[in-house]
Amino acid sequence: MRHEIRDLYDEVADLLDDDRVEALPGYFVDDCVYRITTRENHDRGLPGGFMYCDGVAMLRDRILAIRETQVYEPRSWRHFISGVRVRSVDGDTIRAHANFLVTEAMSDAEPTLFMVGRYEDELVRRDGRLLLRVRLAICDNHHVRRSIVMPI
Amino acid sequence: MRHEIRDLYDEVADLLDDDRVEALPGYFVDDCVYRITTRENHDRGLPGGFMYCDGVAMLRDRILAIRETQVYEPRSWRHFISGVRVRSVDGDTIRAHANFLVTEAMSDAEPTLFMVGRYEDELVRRDGRLLLRVRLAICDNHHVRRSIVMPI
Amino acid sequence: MRHEIRDLYDEVADLLDDDRVEALPGYFVDDCVYRITTRENHDRGLPGGFMYCDGVAMLRDRILAIRETQVYEPRSWRHFISGVRVRSVDGDTIRAHANFLVTEAMSDAEPTLFMVGRYEDELVRRDGRLLLRVRLAICDNHHVRRSIVMPI
Repeated sequence: MRHEIRDLYDEVADLLDDDRVEALPGYFVDDCVYRITTRENHDRGLPGGFMYCDGVAMLRDRILAIRETQVYEPRSWRHFISGVRVRSVDGDTIRAHANFLVTEAMSDAEPTLFMVGRYEDELVRRDGRLLLRVRLAICDNHHVRRSIVMPI
Repeated sequence: MRHEIRDLYDEVADLLDDDRVEALPGYFVDDCVYRITTRENHDRGLPGGFMYCDGVAMLRDRILAIRETQVYEPRSWRHFISGVRVRSVDGDTIRAHANFLVTEAMSDAEPTLFMVGRYEDELVRRDGRLLLRVRLAICDNHHVRRSIVMPI
Repeated sequence: MRHEIRDLYDEVADLLDDDRVEALPGYFVDDCVYRITTRENHDRGLPGGFMYCDGVAMLRDRILAIRETQVYEPRSWRHFISGVRVRSVDGDTIRAHANFLVTEAMSDAEPTLFMVGRYEDELVRRDGRLLLRVRLAICDNHHVRRSIVMPI
């Protein structure tokens, strides 16, 4: 099962690196939660964060909005995922986590560490396929360097 | 066997990232060696380094001392492990290595590359479970940025 | 098959990290292509880049030349590979890709992000063993910090 989850994580990372973010909602169930937050907010149980989507429709809207307002410079992202681990299996619900490191490169600058943190996810099986019900990306970053955030 | 070793590496990395370092000695045999050193010292066959524990009791003492003198700022560590490889199997002794990259984030600063290097380990099987007999963490780092070092 | 490719990637990364670059041509078929280029050049279909070898003889020559002109400071490289994925299998040709991150450490400085990018490879099976026919290393880097480039 860990290999199957690893495959899912790699597939999702790949589409984000490849500028195919429109394919992301296809990896979530309808009543999903997608949230990017900071370690500090998460540990204090605070709301807020960089991005919050309640349901796949909201995730789709958000992605559309990002594309429409995409005024920023071209950049390359690159995901590195390590330590995929299954935390628990409870009925059809799998809890898993993994570390992520994302580099960012602008067209005129060298790659830098962009975001580092941990995915804490809840997965379910639908028609034999693993899908995300909750993706919580908890960033060690204190802040992010720009206001428009893409899903990570 | 490589998958089993990869799982062990991920488990150990996870407890270090998760501030559960007290669980670390449970992954070692009693007559273990735990050492953090630099690439330069290692290649010259020099002793010394950032941390040296001869036996699991010494490792436990060291962890206790770290906790008691923990005066530093809260920080997050995140391990990324790549290239887990079995070098040799000789009787019940397995030699394996892997690359590690650890990021560090302070509460008021962005994540940075903290330590990069290679684990060169010796593992043995006890009651069906893989344990570390030797963990040698050889760092490419020239020095570390603070005097109190946690196990990596 | 993904595990087999992952093993190959790890083996190749290991020999580069370990300063055994002379072993690299042994992982390629005779009529191979080895190329390091930038994301920008690749996306525009431009030739050029950091390194181009057409055939394994040229790759061997290049490695020899690097060794002979090796005037640079000792340094450590460390490869981190994530997201190994099989893109297609067509007859005996496998197309695969993976993200790479290489850190570099000089003897008197801390490790830094050196190269980040994606391998886009073509592999074939010869006598039961997977070999590279095409290795394209597409770097997110805008430029590299030194003129003599080693294979990555």
